[in-house]
Amino acid sequence: MRARLLEATVDLLVERGFAGTSTTLVSERAGVSRGAQLHHFPTKNDLVVAAVEHLTERRGAELAAAFDTLSAEPVATATGRRTRLRSVVTMLGDHFASPVFAAALELWVAARTDPALLAAVAPLEQRVGREAHRMTAAALGADESRPGVRELVQATLDLVRGLGLASTISDDSARRRRILREWADVLDKELG
Amino acid sequence: MRARLLEATVDLLVERGFAGTSTTLVSERAGVSRGAQLHHFPTKNDLVVAAVEHLTERRGAELAAAFDTLSAEPVATATGRRTRLRSVVTMLGDHFASPVFAAALELWVAARTDPALLAAVAPLEQRVGREAHRMTAAALGADESRPGVRELVQATLDLVRGLGLASTISDDSARRRRILREWADVLDKELG
Repeated sequence: MRARLLEATVDLLVERGFAGTSTTLVSERAGVSRGAQLHHFPTKNDLVVAAVEHLTERRGAELAAAFDTLSAEPVATATGRRTRLRSVVTMLGDHFASPVFAAALELWVAARTDPALLAAVAPLEQRVGREAHRMTAAALGADESRPGVRELVQATLDLVRGLGLASTISDDSARRRRILREWADVLDKELG
Repeated sequence: MRARLLEATVDLLVERGFAGTSTTLVSERAGVSRGAQLHHFPTKNDLVVAAVEHLTERRGAELAAAFDTLSAEPVATATGRRTRLRSVVTMLGDHFASPVFAAALELWVAARTDPALLAAVAPLEQRVGREAHRMTAAALGADESRPGVRELVQATLDLVRGLGLASTISDDSARRRRILREWADVLDKELG
């Protein structure tokens, strides 16, 4: 029942945004009585903080699953390596344009002007950011002991975050693909 | 009086977010009577659409002013060119972490789940995006007739957008500077 309430909260964040997500709508969507909801989450803040944690786990799990779909075979040739880098950044671009990104975006922006929410969001965001960085560096085969490499891995994640934000205003998936293909080829040269 | 109301709207978007910006607060902040406000903007929607236009103009003007602060001297040496590219991307990074970016972010995210607002935001966003692209390409000295160059100019803007979004959750200006310095050096090689 707890999981149903948290999933309903995430769905409503995607569909109606933070301001449009009320506790009444959440209990309706989850098919849970108001009494049962109040038992699990006495206040809206309790529900939102739990939803932030739930969403963080879900983002981490979805990203890990997406990395798992990439071929684990070692890349032996230059062409194979380039193809691999393109797959990694395309996958990241898709992940940052997905519904969980939209839900996270709602929380980030609400947290910007809500100190209590920010206190819940900021440390989890740091954790998910570190995990995403670690997985991305590994998938790119990046040697972060070399100068500048760590910054380019970070830039890759900031780029897909920016592209994800742009995708909420207009469907620009074709533009995204062109940019990320070029980005992958730059990484190929710089990380090689 | 119209301008005062629009500036007050933008200030409140920065301070309280879209959901926290009410027409009552706007008239109070602007020091304008409710009657006078309703004369200029009969509905909240009228006020918001006008504020979107006002903010778009202000973003364009602030970005143009920031580009103007860059030295207009032609870059004769390799070192001069590298310094120039670093200045351009640092300036862009600062612009996308400024209050006008926060106000725009509030409108983008609210528009994601509000079709009427999206109809006002999307075409203006396209226009400001085209202008930012044109100014950035010129400042970088990018020859967009060469394959891949256009995509790298776009990637630069998407990167600073992503960095701007990250900066709303935590102050990461030191991280931003390191990433953008590295990116400038990559652009130096790729555009050269």
